[in-house]
Formats: sequence, structure tokens, C-alpha cells
Amino acid sequence: MRATYEALIEHGYENLTIQRIGDEFPKSKSLIYQHYDGKDEVLVELLEFLLDHFETQMPKPDDGSAHARLLAMIEYVLAPEPDAERVALTEVMVELRGQAPHNETFEAYFTANDGRFRRELTDIVERGVEEGVYRSVDADAVAEFLLTSISGGTVRRATAGDAVDLAAVRREIETYLDARLLRDGAA
Amino acid sequence: MRATYEALIEHGYENLTIQRIGDEFPKSKSLIYQHYDGKDEVLVELLEFLLDHFETQMPKPDDGSAHARLLAMIEYVLAPEPDAERVALTEVMVELRGQAPHNETFEAYFTANDGRFRRELTDIVERGVEEGVYRSVDADAVAEFLLTSISGGTVRRATAGDAVDLAAVRREIETYLDARLLRDGAA
Repeated sequence: MRATYEALIEHGYENLTIQRIGDEFPKSKSLIYQHYDGKDEVLVELLEFLLDHFETQMPKPDDGSAHARLLAMIEYVLAPEPDAERVALTEVMVELRGQAPHNETFEAYFTANDGRFRRELTDIVERGVEEGVYRSVDADAVAEFLLTSISGGTVRRATAGDAVDLAAVRREIETYLDARLLRDGAA
Repeated sequence: MRATYEALIEHGYENLTIQRIGDEFPKSKSLIYQHYDGKDEVLVELLEFLLDHFETQMPKPDDGSAHARLLAMIEYVLAPEPDAERVALTEVMVELRGQAPHNETFEAYFTANDGRFRRELTDIVERGVEEGVYRSVDADAVAEFLLTSISGGTVRRATAGDAVDLAAVRREIETYLDARLLRDGAA
């Protein structure tokens, strides 16, 4: 996976070939061909590996409340100053996502991945309702909107340079959460 | 421009060449080379052409109030059932946006384009404040968040298929606008 990642960052999707992944790979190129049908399958495997890594790094606050968890997740995903590895991961994701309209392998991957993240957000919102901290809202709709805003922030950061004011985006998401979710006096 | 567009939709960015644009072009290929430095410059010109076209089609409500204008804009950009041309345009935009992390020409384009759309949103919010309908908010922050949510909706629709519930996204944006912008009783 490291080999694929290095090759992707160096060459970009357009210029990435199995040959170039092989160049970064300590074992032989035939080993890659043996395991995968082609470049896109290798890349989907890479995306899954990277996202698992990304998820294990996501902070899970000790106090365990749904609202603390949600705020920590948003802060992490739209981090003010992500490290170089996170920046590279985001750029890879955005580039491969850009292939999805014309590439069924990637479209299936991003559809599944969006679904997973949305279910996680839905679960947190439902837990906040059970805890009595959140209003009795349509958790699916709130999760869909949060995922969409977060996706937009991620894509814009990777593609519109430093012009994006992500701090403002985070503040407005919190304003939305306060107004939409939190019962009066629950904050 | 039509030639570039047809070639892009048919071949996708990765497989697009000046040759293929030329194949769709009624005039000669050398005419294209004469006017542009390369494929990316042709595509930026195409993006500008398409967005101007897109903007002229955007409904501008007769009553002229800032809030009606903002709602119409959101409804148009996140349309429930966009026509085939709009779908193709969105897919082209998302694909080229995916190139931006590794392509300065596209990064500069999307940065400028985001800025233009954000200024338009800021102007509308400021007008709503002047009209006394909106609270005295940070118009830049609200515009940045709206642009981010809209961008996320656009990208997700093009890359995660029919799994995206854009109606929920529109409803939650309106909930946000009600809570954040509208003075009590102003709706």
C-alpha cells in the first residue's frame, strides 16, 4: 500500500501505472498483477487502507457524550492545520473522487464510503437524542447535511488553496448544531 | 467550445487530447493550437463558457428580495431533477476540480470561481441585512458556509450516485438560514 501511495502522490492518477507502482514496490511487479485486476482495484484497496488509518486516528473523547464526539469529529476532519500526511491523503481522495463520474469502480467506492460515514453521523445524532441533549430531529437528514458540508470543506480545501476559510465553516456548522440539535440550556 | 465539451464528455479528462478536441471541431486543429497553449487552457476557457451559460440560466425572482433570491439560487444549484446538460456540466466540473490538487491552472481557476460565487452570496446576505430581514451577521462566514455546503452537494451528487438525499440537504440549509439569518417573524 505504501508503494501505491508513494507512486500516486508522485505521479497523480492520470500518470499512474502498475509499472510505476511496481517501481516503488520492494517486491516484484508480477506480485501486484497476481493480486489485482488493474490500477483501479489497487487504488480502491489503497483508499480503504488510508481511511481505516484515518479513522483509527480520529479522537474519541473520553467523556463519551454524543455532542462531544460530534464536535471532535468535525474539528478533526476540518482541522485548522492538518499535517502533511493528511493533506496528501485529502488530495488523493479528491483526485480519485473526481474520476468517479466516469469510473464505476470509484463511484461504487465513494457511494459506499459516504454511506459508512453518514451512518456513523446518524448514530451519533440518535445517541444525542436518546441522551436527551438533542431535540427529536430527523437524524438521517442532519447527518446527510453534515456529511455534505464536511465533504464540501474537504474538496474546497484541496482544490481552492488557502482561499477557503475553514474556521468560518466550522463555526457555522456549530451554529447550525446549536440551533437545530441542542435543546435549550443543554449546551 | 462545443467541440471541447463534446470531446470532454466523450473521452473524459484523462483521455482528452487536442487531437480529439480537433476531431469534434468543424475548423482545423491548427486553429486550436494557434489560440491556446495546451489542453488545460482550452478546458479553462470551456469552464468559463459553461459557467457563464449556467449563470444566465439561474432564476432571478421578480420580487427582488434578498431572501427570495438566495432560496431560488440554492434550489437551482441543488435542483431536485437537473436536466441531462446540467448533469454533464456538473460531472465535468467535478472531474476537472479533482485535477486541481496537482494542476495549478485548475487550482487557480477554481479558487477564482469559488471567490466569485462567494462574493455573490455575501452580497445577497448583506442586502438581506440592509433590508432588515436578516440579522446583523458575519456575511462572509455565512457565504463561506453556504458555498461549502453547496459545493459538497454538487460533488457528492456527481460521485456518489443516487445515494445522496439532496432534498434533505436543501431542507437543512433552509433550517440553518431560518435560525441564523431571519429575524423573528421575518419569514
